[in-house]
Amino acid sequence: MSKKKQFVESITEMEEDFAQWYTDVVKQAELVDYGPVRGTMIIEPYGFAMWEHIRDELDRQIKETGHKNVSFPLFIPESLLQKEKDHVEGFAPEVAWVTHGGEEELGERICVRPTSEVLFCNYYSDKINSYRDLPKLYNQWSNVVRWEKTTRPFLRSLEFLWQEGHTAHATHEEAEAETAKMLDVYADVVENYLAIPVIKGRKTDMEKFAGANYTLTIETLMHDGQALQAGTSHLFGTGFAEAFDITYLDKEGKQQYVHQTSWGITTRLIGALIMVHGDNRGLVVPPRIAPTQAMIVPIAQHKEGVLDKAYDLRDQLASVARVDIDASDKMPGWKFNECEMKGYPVRIEIGPRDIEKNQVVIARRDNGEKEFVSLDDIETRLPELLEEIQANLFNQAYEHRATKTSIVKNMDELTTALKENPGFMKAMWCGDEACEEKIKEDTSVTSRCIPFEQEKVSDTCLCCGKEAKELVYWARAY
Amino acid sequence: MSKKKQFVESITEMEEDFAQWYTDVVKQAELVDYGPVRGTMIIEPYGFAMWEHIRDELDRQIKETGHKNVSFPLFIPESLLQKEKDHVEGFAPEVAWVTHGGEEELGERICVRPTSEVLFCNYYSDKINSYRDLPKLYNQWSNVVRWEKTTRPFLRSLEFLWQEGHTAHATHEEAEAETAKMLDVYADVVENYLAIPVIKGRKTDMEKFAGANYTLTIETLMHDGQALQAGTSHLFGTGFAEAFDITYLDKEGKQQYVHQTSWGITTRLIGALIMVHGDNRGLVVPPRIAPTQAMIVPIAQHKEGVLDKAYDLRDQLASVARVDIDASDKMPGWKFNECEMKGYPVRIEIGPRDIEKNQVVIARRDNGEKEFVSLDDIETRLPELLEEIQANLFNQAYEHRATKTSIVKNMDELTTALKENPGFMKAMWCGDEACEEKIKEDTSVTSRCIPFEQEKVSDTCLCCGKEAKELVYWARAY
Repeated sequence: MSKKKQFVESITEMEEDFAQWYTDVVKQAELVDYGPVRGTMIIEPYGFAMWEHIRDELDRQIKETGHKNVSFPLFIPESLLQKEKDHVEGFAPEVAWVTHGGEEELGERICVRPTSEVLFCNYYSDKINSYRDLPKLYNQWSNVVRWEKTTRPFLRSLEFLWQEGHTAHATHEEAEAETAKMLDVYADVVENYLAIPVIKGRKTDMEKFAGANYTLTIETLMHDGQALQAGTSHLFGTGFAEAFDITYLDKEGKQQYVHQTSWGITTRLIGALIMVHGDNRGLVVPPRIAPTQAMIVPIAQHKEGVLDKAYDLRDQLASVARVDIDASDKMPGWKFNECEMKGYPVRIEIGPRDIEKNQVVIARRDNGEKEFVSLDDIETRLPELLEEIQANLFNQAYEHRATKTSIVKNMDELTTALKENPGFMKAMWCGDEACEEKIKEDTSVTSRCIPFEQEKVSDTCLCCGKEAKELVYWARAY
Repeated sequence: MSKKKQFVESITEMEEDFAQWYTDVVKQAELVDYGPVRGTMIIEPYGFAMWEHIRDELDRQIKETGHKNVSFPLFIPESLLQKEKDHVEGFAPEVAWVTHGGEEELGERICVRPTSEVLFCNYYSDKINSYRDLPKLYNQWSNVVRWEKTTRPFLRSLEFLWQEGHTAHATHEEAEAETAKMLDVYADVVENYLAIPVIKGRKTDMEKFAGANYTLTIETLMHDGQALQAGTSHLFGTGFAEAFDITYLDKEGKQQYVHQTSWGITTRLIGALIMVHGDNRGLVVPPRIAPTQAMIVPIAQHKEGVLDKAYDLRDQLASVARVDIDASDKMPGWKFNECEMKGYPVRIEIGPRDIEKNQVVIARRDNGEKEFVSLDDIETRLPELLEEIQANLFNQAYEHRATKTSIVKNMDELTTALKENPGFMKAMWCGDEACEEKIKEDTSVTSRCIPFEQEKVSDTCLCCGKEAKELVYWARAY
């Protein structure tokens, strides 16, 4: 007997095949379709509206913290990409190369930006002269291209949308503070808007950004127990400044290198919210970033007065929430399924009997509960309820992560945890890259981060058994 | 003796060399810098903030008229670009080609989108099946690449930012109405936000978009008398639908081709506003899209209480206008020059004597007038004044255009007008492309549009002298 159930169209159950469930949801909820070049994506209206809500909130916070938006070019000359050694080694293998413009073959190959450090550095080296020019706090919303071998919508695609902040500071301390501040901004947006709890920490040297001194990260856990890096913030120190000769005259008249950072989040956040909140009926969207927070479904809409009342209700609620109405000629049951697939936080049912009683029925997507609400109270109750749902989604995800987090003391325990309860594994590490490599090769588990909140869960490295240096979160990851 | 004057840095006078004046303003007002690949541009914070204000208003109107934002890929396979014959002929010569991904040479070349018709068509052919799927009203904000030989910041660049709307409709009438509606939206934004008067009309077949039935346009006139096409809206009819097999089942159960449109405006609008409103002291930004509408300049700011009062004023005005304060240690004269170069609509001066009198001095950028305003009235007066400035800028531009518009009846009059008062030339045309070609070859003058508001200024074609069909606006153009 097939485990599939009949919704708008059937989707695979997540317990059966999580990857297929994900693909089904992404397609059925009309978030994304495939572009004609392998690995590229078309973000459809519903998916893009979600991105707009995430983007607008993050953009607000980026500006509030003193940053300014700019727009840098898509194209980088090959010679410019090669200026910082570690950086080019990290990115050159996955770059798309433009070799012809119109009919003409180019003298130098041009790379489609995989990230824009070298462009900002080139600009800063020209624009920064004195301490008065610092700090430079720039951000851009753009598309980047990375020639990935295997791709999945939102999670890993040939082209994706993101924001990339690039800053230059007079001192190491300022740059460190910036790196930490932007990680906090990311954590705020991911926790309080996407309702996904994060672990804040630092990447190991093996996992850090190509060219960075260190990389800070927020790590999240998906429903299937795999981790997903949700945002990163890099401290560059003076590495790029030395390669690009970005210096300033300090107050004492001495030439100094600037200290730089960069930080980014991408459309993969949408992938994260699908895999954290979704269920076998489809998507579940946190109210604060939901394009439609409440969908009104008229019941027996052919009866006199029902549709009028439903439209009145929509107008009444327009100033307190993002409300839409499904007045199509589909059956209510079909509309309900669609509401569930799309993950609208609540569905509001209004029919002849409700109208008689001056009430509506509100059905929550997160836990399926229903409540009757008087039309006199709904303008107060709906926003309140949306906040309850927002909080509940976060708490559910938090609980789920707790259940899926194990403490492991050695490789045997790690293997057992991987089999019995895959998720985050907290374990002590000696700090040796050889151990990290071995764990990755043997189990496909990678270090996610060295969390800011350190605990001592044992004395010895889970891999080599030597004296442990620090606690690390480990997991298989997207 | 040099005609240059000493401002923040000197800029060339527009009467001396308009092109150099433009370049100077663009650089000195810190709107844009050059990217490392020829013809690409870095839009700096001030320029980008201006774009954000234009974008946000246009985006609001695009959504209000029922369109939804999406995000389509940057890359187009060569075979897909070639599907519509006229379209590929128009665009292939100026396309950037990706031939390598990472280390691997691609089996098929990939084009960096110069525009996205073929991507939307490919998607629509998959998604549109029935009349219930129509209309499709999609828009995207994106970057596109055109391999132009000669480039200038904002006006013509290898890569630029724009929005492109792509719609599909059941009937020809609906598509026509859409094409006209979006031209009206563009006209509204350009006239009421950028304060630039437009001529609405239709392009001749020679000047229309590659693949369109017809192209509607809004044409504007720059300070030097050259025209600039500020936005276009194209009716495709069923041309693309036939090439891409985009059909739907109508209510009678018959397969029909969809009727399509596309429409776009770009960052060149910023170029237009520079060349319409700017003067020899720099930029002049219309208040409604000005990132900074009022700059507060404290006078004798070292004196006790001045800076405090200036900051209080900024806070007081924050809810009625976009207000900033220049509390740097530069001299007031220097700050004044900078205000003029940047084109802030007003400058607010506040010094010890003003504070004593409970007033400020407001200096207008558009006409240099100054007025004293009581601190009790400023919250009402400032927004009022900004609207007066907005209206005045439009009126000035309107007057200027009127002065620079000639009626010409033959080629001699056209040549004289070109020499003595270059600008728009209104003249009758027989409708023959041979005349249009000849005018272009002999004088570099192109047909700008066949205006919706037709007049009969003579009986015969300005070029061949045969019977005239319609009135055309002619000009040299950017």
